[in-house]
Amino acid sequence: MLALGRGSIAQVVYSGDEAAVEIRKLLEAVVENEDDFEKWEALVTRATTLEGGVNRNSNPSAIDLVRNVFDCFLAKFPLFFGYWKKYADLEFSIGGTETAEEVYERGVSCITTSVDLWANYCTFKMDTSHDPDIIRQLFERGAHFVGRDFQSHPFWDKYIEFEERVQAPANVTKILSRVLYLPLYHIARYYEKFSALLGSRPLEELVDDETLDTLKNAVQLENQAGPEIAPLELERQLRLKLADYYYTAYSKTSQEVQTRWNYEQGIKRAYFHVTEVEDAELDNWRKYLDFEEKEGDFERTAFLYERCLVACALYPEFWLRYARWMFSQGKEENTRLIYMRASCIFVPISAPAVRLNWALFEEKLGRISVSRDIYIAMLEQAPGQTDTIISLAGVERRHEGNDAAVALLEQYIGQSDNQIGGILAAEQARILWHCKGAVDEARDIFKSKYARFLDSRDFWIKYLQFEVAQPSPDQKEAHARIKAVHELMRTKGTVSEEVSKELSHYYMAYLLNRGGKDAAEEYMQLDKIVNGYVSSDKSVPSQSLPQKRNGLPHHTASKRQRK
Amino acid sequence: MLALGRGSIAQVVYSGDEAAVEIRKLLEAVVENEDDFEKWEALVTRATTLEGGVNRNSNPSAIDLVRNVFDCFLAKFPLFFGYWKKYADLEFSIGGTETAEEVYERGVSCITTSVDLWANYCTFKMDTSHDPDIIRQLFERGAHFVGRDFQSHPFWDKYIEFEERVQAPANVTKILSRVLYLPLYHIARYYEKFSALLGSRPLEELVDDETLDTLKNAVQLENQAGPEIAPLELERQLRLKLADYYYTAYSKTSQEVQTRWNYEQGIKRAYFHVTEVEDAELDNWRKYLDFEEKEGDFERTAFLYERCLVACALYPEFWLRYARWMFSQGKEENTRLIYMRASCIFVPISAPAVRLNWALFEEKLGRISVSRDIYIAMLEQAPGQTDTIISLAGVERRHEGNDAAVALLEQYIGQSDNQIGGILAAEQARILWHCKGAVDEARDIFKSKYARFLDSRDFWIKYLQFEVAQPSPDQKEAHARIKAVHELMRTKGTVSEEVSKELSHYYMAYLLNRGGKDAAEEYMQLDKIVNGYVSSDKSVPSQSLPQKRNGLPHHTASKRQRK
Repeated sequence: MLALGRGSIAQVVYSGDEAAVEIRKLLEAVVENEDDFEKWEALVTRATTLEGGVNRNSNPSAIDLVRNVFDCFLAKFPLFFGYWKKYADLEFSIGGTETAEEVYERGVSCITTSVDLWANYCTFKMDTSHDPDIIRQLFERGAHFVGRDFQSHPFWDKYIEFEERVQAPANVTKILSRVLYLPLYHIARYYEKFSALLGSRPLEELVDDETLDTLKNAVQLENQAGPEIAPLELERQLRLKLADYYYTAYSKTSQEVQTRWNYEQGIKRAYFHVTEVEDAELDNWRKYLDFEEKEGDFERTAFLYERCLVACALYPEFWLRYARWMFSQGKEENTRLIYMRASCIFVPISAPAVRLNWALFEEKLGRISVSRDIYIAMLEQAPGQTDTIISLAGVERRHEGNDAAVALLEQYIGQSDNQIGGILAAEQARILWHCKGAVDEARDIFKSKYARFLDSRDFWIKYLQFEVAQPSPDQKEAHARIKAVHELMRTKGTVSEEVSKELSHYYMAYLLNRGGKDAAEEYMQLDKIVNGYVSSDKSVPSQSLPQKRNGLPHHTASKRQRK
Repeated sequence: MLALGRGSIAQVVYSGDEAAVEIRKLLEAVVENEDDFEKWEALVTRATTLEGGVNRNSNPSAIDLVRNVFDCFLAKFPLFFGYWKKYADLEFSIGGTETAEEVYERGVSCITTSVDLWANYCTFKMDTSHDPDIIRQLFERGAHFVGRDFQSHPFWDKYIEFEERVQAPANVTKILSRVLYLPLYHIARYYEKFSALLGSRPLEELVDDETLDTLKNAVQLENQAGPEIAPLELERQLRLKLADYYYTAYSKTSQEVQTRWNYEQGIKRAYFHVTEVEDAELDNWRKYLDFEEKEGDFERTAFLYERCLVACALYPEFWLRYARWMFSQGKEENTRLIYMRASCIFVPISAPAVRLNWALFEEKLGRISVSRDIYIAMLEQAPGQTDTIISLAGVERRHEGNDAAVALLEQYIGQSDNQIGGILAAEQARILWHCKGAVDEARDIFKSKYARFLDSRDFWIKYLQFEVAQPSPDQKEAHARIKAVHELMRTKGTVSEEVSKELSHYYMAYLLNRGGKDAAEEYMQLDKIVNGYVSSDKSVPSQSLPQKRNGLPHHTASKRQRK
């Protein structure tokens, strides 16, 4: 079974002290609606301030509580980097360095693209470790994940600060010569800092040997004509060449910065929050992604998607788009992971699109049982989702056959109300009719089940559509058959007056589309009876009429008609 | 051919004097858009003021013009009673009493329910005729048409004033005793006036003989026990009985006034105008009609409909409702007249509902050619109305057979653009398929015509739906066949990207609904290609998808999804 990303907050209890009641209330509030961020916030804040701020001397139950709360909260909202920081600090004051570090590790694995979290983590490491190599390793890991972020200067500044603190100017040089190739907002600043070094630092440090040799050769070539030159003069010329060399690189990078500048400006909220993202900003993300996709650099595009999906984690559009793009890069496994992350962690069940696509994708990869499990997991969270049930029946049908699908639907009908049940029964009939080609079996479904679904619009409309769709050489026979269903609906059916009218309009449309000489007679009689004249008739739900034009006399009946 | 109520303003010319140019401009403006009331108003006003006000001494062309203008204007907007009055006054100053009277006659026949116009007409008659009987006849005609109007007191007051002026107090009494039975706003006033007479006027005048006798008997009965009574005393008692008698009648009437009071209050605009009617007022009409219909008095209900259709003449809803109600009263001929008045005079062609229902009604009455003529007349005014063309093909099919209908559609396809043509071609295929049961002929339509309708959404969707709907024991064959159409659409079709996506979604839905083991494979490939990932894909027109649920991954893709 797949856990679709829910913390087990429901199990959390606290019996510590006088605050117990208050905490219980806050816990209940969260359990009631786990998607409500404010409730969580209140709980987290209160928990951390228990006994005037939890620390290693607080009573164990308080410590357990605050840890549980953070764990559940961050399982639910893993993208709030600020809370990972809070949690780590708290852990530091409770469990010390090791446990704090664990929290940071969990944090950066959940939100790998957070410049701030990485910067915090590295700072923490600088304060708590005495081994420069270990610290440097962490900085390198961070560089891998956030180094190319347009706004990653806080991280790079911290890295440089570290190397300066441990008196490793050579490394500072190396960092700066790397940064020079990344399109960063503060690229100019770094270039300035670097050019200063170009005059002072030893040549070997400033550039790789190969390039150095090429430059040396160039200088010698230029001087070979003239007289012997002093080594100092040679070095001066060499450093000039070097400056040119890096200036070219810098120009190229700042060009890339320029082209991304407009898009970057459009990002007002790079971090995650539960509130909505401005439409203009969503559109900016779309355009930015278009741009990087066209640029065609896989790493950068993927990284931009990751950044985008921190700010827009709750928008299926971008998850679906990311998955499609990744798939188009021929990377099936990565595509899977995208669907999985979106479904299990970020996108709420109320937006089934991503999960449904994921299930189809698994089916495509031949993982039929996984596909099935996804649907089942969805139905555990949202039992009434007919789309999901029908999709589940679909995978069943495609791989186990029609009757298996019908049987499966039968189960769900058993545990559904009439509205949902009616839709599922109609789907059973559709499968028997369209896929199995067993018209009579399909008809039996309708005949044997209408008594239960008297009040189900979908059941009746599908029943009518089914009979209307049957090819029949004998129009009289067909008319009698279809008329009978309409009669049945009007006499036995218990749908609302509006729905009954809609269904009759469907039948009336049939009359005009297929009926013979006396169709108009029957039509006008029905027009009188069905549309009648008492004012309730002004609301005729004809949007859903299959053939608008024939419903038309009734649609427009209610509306003001003027040129 | 039916003239659907248009004045022949286009033929009007004026070459009178220096104003000729100005008048021509005003005429052109009207011809350009005959539904624009302001243009008409400007024309009418200017025409009447030609030569400082047209009268019998104006030059003939000015007189012709002003008459033509009024005739055309009132043919177009017959419900503006104010303009009938203006016209009549003008005629009086041009042609004198006779011609003025003709105008009034035309006016009251066009807007029979106008209290003011009748009052004006009668006043005119009082001023111009010296024969009380003739005047009285006119008042009686008016009484028949507007006497029961809730606000008809201006008319009744005028009538009473007349009888008083010709010193016929007996008639005044008669009028008042009639009015007492009508639910009028000023009923109390009339009752007061009448009670005053109850003491003074001769008994025979106050009540019909029969009632008088009954009352007399009652009085005698009361007195027979006691001693002989003086005749004067007898009359006193008799008049008391009479007062009771009329008081009862009055109470009953004012009761009826009470029950109608709320509805009458809701009528802010009882007269016709081209501007919109408030929603609240529309709803008040609906409720008022419900009420009178339930009361069940045919005359009163019909009269209320007539009043309603002065204020709401431009609302097909009420015409349709009136027709249905009339039809439900078993009065087919009256029903016809309602449809006819609505279609030929009031409802603009842009709201075809009423005309389409009328045509069906004529067909029902067996007047097939009339029905046809209605559609044809509609198409002369609005050639592009596909609903109308298809309805015309419908009547053709029902009475001349399938092939006749297909042939007729062929004609209209010849003179249509691709969007309309595509719809009509699809309708040809539908008739051959559904009604004639000739699947191959239907398929030939699609195959032989797609080349012309490459850019028609309706044509392609119907083509896909057609192939999908064909029952097939061999799903492989079906899949190949349907896939071919989809391919054809994507490779040859020239529909917009959005439409192309919609059509592909329909095909993708088919894949999941009917496809086998490898459906998901093909689906995901298409999902990648069709929905792709460039941002244009955010707008997926899936409302119109037949099976929403399968389109769902794509609908929602664009929308923000949150609990």
